Amino acid sequence: MDNTLETNAQMNEELLIKTIEEDNIVGFREEFMTLHPYDQAQFFFKLTPDVRIKVYYFLSPKELAIFFEMLEIEDHEYKGILAEMDPKYAADMLANMFTDNAVDVLNNLDKDQTASYLSIMDHSAAQEIKGLLHYEEYTAGSIMTTEYIAISANQTVRSAMYILKKEAPKAETIYYVYVVDEDERLVGVISLRDLIISSDDTMISEIMFDRIVAISVSADQEEAAKQMRDYDLLALPVVDFQNHLLGIITVDDIIDVIDEEASDDYSKLAGVSDMDTIDKNPFAAAKKRLPWLIILLFLGMFTASLIGRFEDTLSKVPIVAVFIPLIAGMAGNTGTQALAVAVRGIATGELAEISKIKLILRESGTGLITGTICGVLVAFIVFVWKGELLLGFLVGISILASLFVATLAGSLVPLVMHKFKIDPAVASGPFITTMNDITSILIYFGLATMFMSYLIH
Amino acid sequence: MDNTLETNAQMNEELLIKTIEEDNIVGFREEFMTLHPYDQAQFFFKLTPDVRIKVYYFLSPKELAIFFEMLEIEDHEYKGILAEMDPKYAADMLANMFTDNAVDVLNNLDKDQTASYLSIMDHSAAQEIKGLLHYEEYTAGSIMTTEYIAISANQTVRSAMYILKKEAPKAETIYYVYVVDEDERLVGVISLRDLIISSDDTMISEIMFDRIVAISVSADQEEAAKQMRDYDLLALPVVDFQNHLLGIITVDDIIDVIDEEASDDYSKLAGVSDMDTIDKNPFAAAKKRLPWLIILLFLGMFTASLIGRFEDTLSKVPIVAVFIPLIAGMAGNTGTQALAVAVRGIATGELAEISKIKLILRESGTGLITGTICGVLVAFIVFVWKGELLLGFLVGISILASLFVATLAGSLVPLVMHKFKIDPAVASGPFITTMNDITSILIYFGLATMFMSYLIH
Repeated sequence: MDNTLETNAQMNEELLIKTIEEDNIVGFREEFMTLHPYDQAQFFFKLTPDVRIKVYYFLSPKELAIFFEMLEIEDHEYKGILAEMDPKYAADMLANMFTDNAVDVLNNLDKDQTASYLSIMDHSAAQEIKGLLHYEEYTAGSIMTTEYIAISANQTVRSAMYILKKEAPKAETIYYVYVVDEDERLVGVISLRDLIISSDDTMISEIMFDRIVAISVSADQEEAAKQMRDYDLLALPVVDFQNHLLGIITVDDIIDVIDEEASDDYSKLAGVSDMDTIDKNPFAAAKKRLPWLIILLFLGMFTASLIGRFEDTLSKVPIVAVFIPLIAGMAGNTGTQALAVAVRGIATGELAEISKIKLILRESGTGLITGTICGVLVAFIVFVWKGELLLGFLVGISILASLFVATLAGSLVPLVMHKFKIDPAVASGPFITTMNDITSILIYFGLATMFMSYLIH
Repeated sequence: MDNTLETNAQMNEELLIKTIEEDNIVGFREEFMTLHPYDQAQFFFKLTPDVRIKVYYFLSPKELAIFFEMLEIEDHEYKGILAEMDPKYAADMLANMFTDNAVDVLNNLDKDQTASYLSIMDHSAAQEIKGLLHYEEYTAGSIMTTEYIAISANQTVRSAMYILKKEAPKAETIYYVYVVDEDERLVGVISLRDLIISSDDTMISEIMFDRIVAISVSADQEEAAKQMRDYDLLALPVVDFQNHLLGIITVDDIIDVIDEEASDDYSKLAGVSDMDTIDKNPFAAAKKRLPWLIILLFLGMFTASLIGRFEDTLSKVPIVAVFIPLIAGMAGNTGTQALAVAVRGIATGELAEISKIKLILRESGTGLITGTICGVLVAFIVFVWKGELLLGFLVGISILASLFVATLAGSLVPLVMHKFKIDPAVASGPFITTMNDITSILIYFGLATMFMSYLIH
């Protein structure tokens, strides 16, 4: 199934492990240093802690820094891995990482641990990290890096290329160069591609692009993702309200954001507190799924007690019970559809562009249309199947009303939550489903009780 | 709410429209040509067809090609827009687009339309497009482009930079340069960054990276996305089974793939045939949601007919009906949770790494744990609330059995579909939910009928 060809790249895991066991530093480095950082990270993470402790003696903090950011581990696991290292070694490694990645790691530690690493770290690296640590999570500021290349407009392509070559080793991307004025305000951008195809004596001011797409440091990271996707950018400059250049966001971080946000919305729609990964044991998986199930259980007991109030209707016309799952199920699913559309609309920013009243009108219309079609269909089927005109009419009307209410609820609830700055995705699928179960059953039994005398034969 | 600062970039839409109305070509081009291609596309798409026809006279096919690929329109809309243009103009524009984007557009037209554009197009461009047109949708081949830069290992950095500068204007990315042997086999890769920081006389063979990450032309596009995300690549080379370099996939296309796949999985979980966008009218929205609702309606009628068979039980012990929504709802939601985990596992490739038996064992365990906890809880609540030990026991056992079956079904169904190469996400939320509704009700009523004599007071 694995269609990826890693040409000449079959990693020799046994060889690597053997060299570690034999304390053969030269042999280990010979093989390990030619691997891609991602493969280095994969190998490193598979090792047991006591083997990893040896690896720290085989590699410099700087060499470790290169692949450490590529570890695909859970947030809480960083703590343990850093604890395996000598504190000074760990601090050196953090100092050698790109600032945004070091900040990511430090954000997973306790405040006093972070402070102690920063205190023994190289001063200038510590300053850069401190500058980024205070940005709130999920903002553009929290995912930006300060390792960009800035030049002035009043210089030639030749001198710009000189600066670029000099700063390339420590810049996170060299494919965009940012042009700033004497106050560090962003005034232009130029791609390395344009630099390379321009003649050496061209002035930067002549070839730079001055209609810059930039993002505010406090903007949501999803907004940054949208900009980079729309404009096909490899890096997005981050500025403050006075347009001072503070950092850049690179495309690899944005891919992670898009991935995270999508799987976050997805797991909430499914009612899994956090998407559990396949290889977890059943207890861990059950722990992640139980919170919603138990909430649903209580909501379900509430629904049961509602139906309990109609026991009289039920005992007199038991056939009414037959349609409970149909009506509740359809209402639940309609609500989920409307919810999903609204949540995606909010996530992609589409919703910001149309008026709320227009949305409500549209969803009312959609609910009315789907409700009418399904209601008429059901009424007809019940009439043909059971030969009961009134029962068919009753079920049909209930479906119509339930679908209308469910559609409106499914789109209004996330809208209201978004208004109050609550993540609309927490109004997850199971919640909307159960809410609509309850409403639809109330509608159905309300109508059934009203018409009960006609239903009894 | 819009936190993006487009410095100096406030697009003067009125001015642009005024220049078009006044047939002021110079004024239009002065403003329009300084815009970012994305903004050009946004402006262009907002125009009415008769205004757009004027724009085709204001811009060359090449100028149109630059922003045409950035149009955010539905697949079927390409046809109409191309029809507005003179056929030769349209063919010229397609020839000037990056090959992968031209192929995207042509794939949305009828076969004979595509053929007619290709016949009047510049010959070499038509050849390149034909070479890509036959790759199956969703494969790496279908999203790759042939505009890459290839060099040989046996040359210096200076000569490589010369080739790069010469080919830069028509390459889709210049940030990676691929090293091929005399048979066009991929032997190495070097980033522009490494080229720039190396001295001019260094041989390419010395500095190229020869453990290349590449992907097979027939591999799934999701596999390509995973590779680029894992290895943080800006471009991924695509090769055939003999390792001949056929093209590259660039990161902007991969972002679109990640977006599409995520929203595809999401809409299927929600049971929306295709995620409808917010601004659609209610009829269009209803049309997208109705297919699932009508399928569910029939499945729901089937459930109803199943319960109908237990009318005898219902009329004798009507209280049994009270717990129908609780049991069906919990089973439905558990199934959706398991489904979501399995679908994501398949999408991210995680599932390929563990054995199927292990997964089934794990899911059985999870179902047993969640089922037991919820079952005991329910039995206890029913006993306390209604004072009915047997009824509580009955509902509890039903919950346990339903949750166990639902969890297994939720993970097995996508697994089996994946095995038979059906997209597992089509086993969408509503389908699994309804399937589990039915099973759980059968279990519940089966048990209730068995113990009926004890339930009647």
